[in-house]
Amino acid sequence: MTRTMATIGTKWKPIVIYTIGLKKLRFGEIFARIEIISKKVLTEQLKELVEDGIVLREAFNETPVRVEYTLTEKGVDLLKILNQLTLWDLKYHKRPKKSKPAV
Amino acid sequence: MTRTMATIGTKWKPIVIYTIGLKKLRFGEIFARIEIISKKVLTEQLKELVEDGIVLREAFNETPVRVEYTLTEKGVDLLKILNQLTLWDLKYHKRPKKSKPAV
Repeated sequence: MTRTMATIGTKWKPIVIYTIGLKKLRFGEIFARIEIISKKVLTEQLKELVEDGIVLREAFNETPVRVEYTLTEKGVDLLKILNQLTLWDLKYHKRPKKSKPAV
Repeated sequence: MTRTMATIGTKWKPIVIYTIGLKKLRFGEIFARIEIISKKVLTEQLKELVEDGIVLREAFNETPVRVEYTLTEKGVDLLKILNQLTLWDLKYHKRPKKSKPAV
């Protein structure tokens, strides 16, 4: 469990996984869709997701080089679980409760 | 998604949720089962899980006061998703790959 959470546990990775989804996207497209991420952080997160076998990076020998990112089968499986987490969140967090005091 | 991960995203919370599971446990029992957590950290994590409606804290008016922790319905729902994450991890991480270099 600790290892699982270490793999997906950062703030950004679930967002990157969601953003790619079932699409095939170039770096600039992912970057534009997330908006609030820095290029440095997105580069790091993509590198780690590729290393963990969640994202597939394909480089095409063109000028300029075209690089595309998709989710692997493992990544799609994780996306499904993240979708369940979102549904769980929607089911129970109807209103933001971040600053709710302890009862 | 960011909010969801913020709720469960720390290293310890999934472990605490797993440890309580479908049981009713006292602080000392949770503490003894996790072993490597400090009392301070466990206290903080339990407090946040109670605030987030994932764990139910019941105090009984005895001497000394008996306090028991269980998962709420929301917590049990989350436990099921965490179980799927564990299965996902087992399916794809047959061997530890933590230090695997990028291909």
